Amino acid sequence: MAIESQVIKVVAICGSLRKASFHRGLIRAAIEICEKSLKGIEIEHVDISNLPFQNTDLETAGTFPPEVEAFRRKIKEADGILFASPEFNYSVTAPLKNAIDWASRPPNAWAGKAGAIVSAGGSSGGGRAQYHLRQIGVFVDLHFINKPEFTLAAFQPPAKFDSDSNLIDEAAKQKLKDVLVALYQFTLKIKA
Amino acid sequence: MAIESQVIKVVAICGSLRKASFHRGLIRAAIEICEKSLKGIEIEHVDISNLPFQNTDLETAGTFPPEVEAFRRKIKEADGILFASPEFNYSVTAPLKNAIDWASRPPNAWAGKAGAIVSAGGSSGGGRAQYHLRQIGVFVDLHFINKPEFTLAAFQPPAKFDSDSNLIDEAAKQKLKDVLVALYQFTLKIKA
Amino acid sequence: MAIESQVIKVVAICGSLRKASFHRGLIRAAIEICEKSLKGIEIEHVDISNLPFQNTDLETAGTFPPEVEAFRRKIKEADGILFASPEFNYSVTAPLKNAIDWASRPPNAWAGKAGAIVSAGGSSGGGRAQYHLRQIGVFVDLHFINKPEFTLAAFQPPAKFDSDSNLIDEAAKQKLKDVLVALYQFTLKIKA
Amino acid sequence: MAIESQVIKVVAICGSLRKASFHRGLIRAAIEICEKSLKGIEIEHVDISNLPFQNTDLETAGTFPPEVEAFRRKIKEADGILFASPEFNYSVTAPLKNAIDWASRPPNAWAGKAGAIVSAGGSSGGGRAQYHLRQIGVFVDLHFINKPEFTLAAFQPPAKFDSDSNLIDEAAKQKLKDVLVALYQFTLKIKA
Repeated sequence: MAIESQVIKVVAICGSLRKASFHRGLIRAAIEICEKSLKGIEIEHVDISNLPFQNTDLETAGTFPPEVEAFRRKIKEADGILFASPEFNYSVTAPLKNAIDWASRPPNAWAGKAGAIVSAGGSSGGGRAQYHLRQIGVFVDLHFINKPEFTLAAFQPPAKFDSDSNLIDEAAKQKLKDVLVALYQFTLKIKA
Repeated sequence: MAIESQVIKVVAICGSLRKASFHRGLIRAAIEICEKSLKGIEIEHVDISNLPFQNTDLETAGTFPPEVEAFRRKIKEADGILFASPEFNYSVTAPLKNAIDWASRPPNAWAGKAGAIVSAGGSSGGGRAQYHLRQIGVFVDLHFINKPEFTLAAFQPPAKFDSDSNLIDEAAKQKLKDVLVALYQFTLKIKA
Repeated sequence: MAIESQVIKVVAICGSLRKASFHRGLIRAAIEICEKSLKGIEIEHVDISNLPFQNTDLETAGTFPPEVEAFRRKIKEADGILFASPEFNYSVTAPLKNAIDWASRPPNAWAGKAGAIVSAGGSSGGGRAQYHLRQIGVFVDLHFINKPEFTLAAFQPPAKFDSDSNLIDEAAKQKLKDVLVALYQFTLKIKA
Repeated sequence: MAIESQVIKVVAICGSLRKASFHRGLIRAAIEICEKSLKGIEIEHVDISNLPFQNTDLETAGTFPPEVEAFRRKIKEADGILFASPEFNYSVTAPLKNAIDWASRPPNAWAGKAGAIVSAGGSSGGGRAQYHLRQIGVFVDLHFINKPEFTLAAFQPPAKFDSDSNLIDEAAKQKLKDVLVALYQFTLKIKA
């Protein structure tokens, strides 16, 4: 399958709100990889920091707050989702869950899309949160790639990120590219 | 063990921000039960709707935003926690995860406390979210009671809540009381 | 997509060893449905009761015990898998995990196949075990359908099974058919 | 709390059947630690390799096969359980699940006991299986210690085990001792 014959839209979401988040660094690296060498993926980082806490009291007659409407539209237009998902207390972060919950309100914007998860963290590299996210995906009808799984033990030497939280580890960059290629191929299957 | 010989402090937290939430109804019922017949439990509903999204950028020199400081103090002073935890998309809600994450920031306010979870929902009664919450509890060092598990299939007849979201089902009230008694007894053990 | 234009091979596996298992009843019903009205699915129940406990000491020079070899061959030849998975103590059964572990030994026989899970049980209908099975699927590289999820509260009236453990509930039969159609369609996508 | 003032009985169970299993090595190390320096713990390795596959057809009038009866008696007499639990395909092993399921048959032999889990494995050190085991524990009513969690990345240098699968890593031995002390203290609380 030629990686450029069909173009898919991928939305990247960062589960951390920290400015210096490693997960934003992962998304920047993913964008760079796509621009350089994966022409089949049109990737966009969609910010979730301006969404209010999910609360159906904020919905009126099927209308959502404007920031929520904008976010839902972005998800709806995407073919695949790249979740940069930190692990906080062995699960996903509140901002990420919040974004997922808003976009899942009927009509569920996630339905039938492909997904991939990348995490950086302590010794488990964020892995425990990924299985919670996968269970959430069953209900919101996301299909995640199985392989490769991307978890990065960010605090073990050598340094994986520079002082600006940019990914500098070449092996991690290659694995990130492998994730993106797998997401591309799986998205095309799922869409078929 | 006499249920009144020792008094424990329980903080109740509602994972939903909806005004008409069934989970607020469960907390109101728990408060009523404690006042009426479980004198050993001093229970307080602590609101989490005013907390900002968790973000370590908001911490300055070990200081938290004032609402977070107040919330953390309430948790720190509690002996046990009653989580009224809805299931959104097969996991806990964003506001609940957010509150847990804030209070877990060092020094972790949850450490060593006892907990119980009550949920109302669709056919599974909210159960899937409870196992995610239990996994979160491993890291934040909460000890949950095992039995009884409280899940309430809220939409099966007869009505479990009235139009003001007050719990009206007598079997559910009794089970809620059983949860509170178990939480009381387990808290005393854990504190020992 | 015409349900008969392409034929896929589905292996059905029963997680319970009990002769009167409801899960064998679910598999019998699935076979009947395929024979009657889903000509695109060639389904076979593969027994797992004769497999020894998984133990790499039983492997010699990449060779498995004969029962294991036979089981692995069946899985390898299948396009999709139907797991009839009871919930024992909130997880999958030992015989089912054992079969999965044997067939996952290199070269992993499950890799890239599609899967669906059906369960009957108590109030949750066996649902908790399904999420464990899905997590196992990430590593062995099975792709499960998301919808419909099939859990059957087997002990609530009216009777779902007759005294020979045959599925007699028409709504459940229809839902089982929906699962099989979804598995058929998803298998064709995944194979593409 | 003086570690010798009260003696508790701990049963150790190994989830792997391999003769050269690292998990047997962990159990041998735990036994050595108890004998040398934790006089409050009377620990015994109870073998599970002779149990048949769990199947209620093998129960007659509330009687279990003799090996099962013997195993259940051992569990019943224990105060706490040490699970040496490998991770196979992101979950617990079949032999371990089988042993748990047999001893959970009414009357549930695990009820109200304390537990701890130790695992050695690949990069996650067996951690994913531990959360499945904890969920199983909710139903069978085991209370696990939260801290310390013991996962050992067995294949990273320096060697953690010698060629006879004996634990030789001093840091791991110390952590294993910490687990045993925590199990001792938690068992006394839970029994209270």
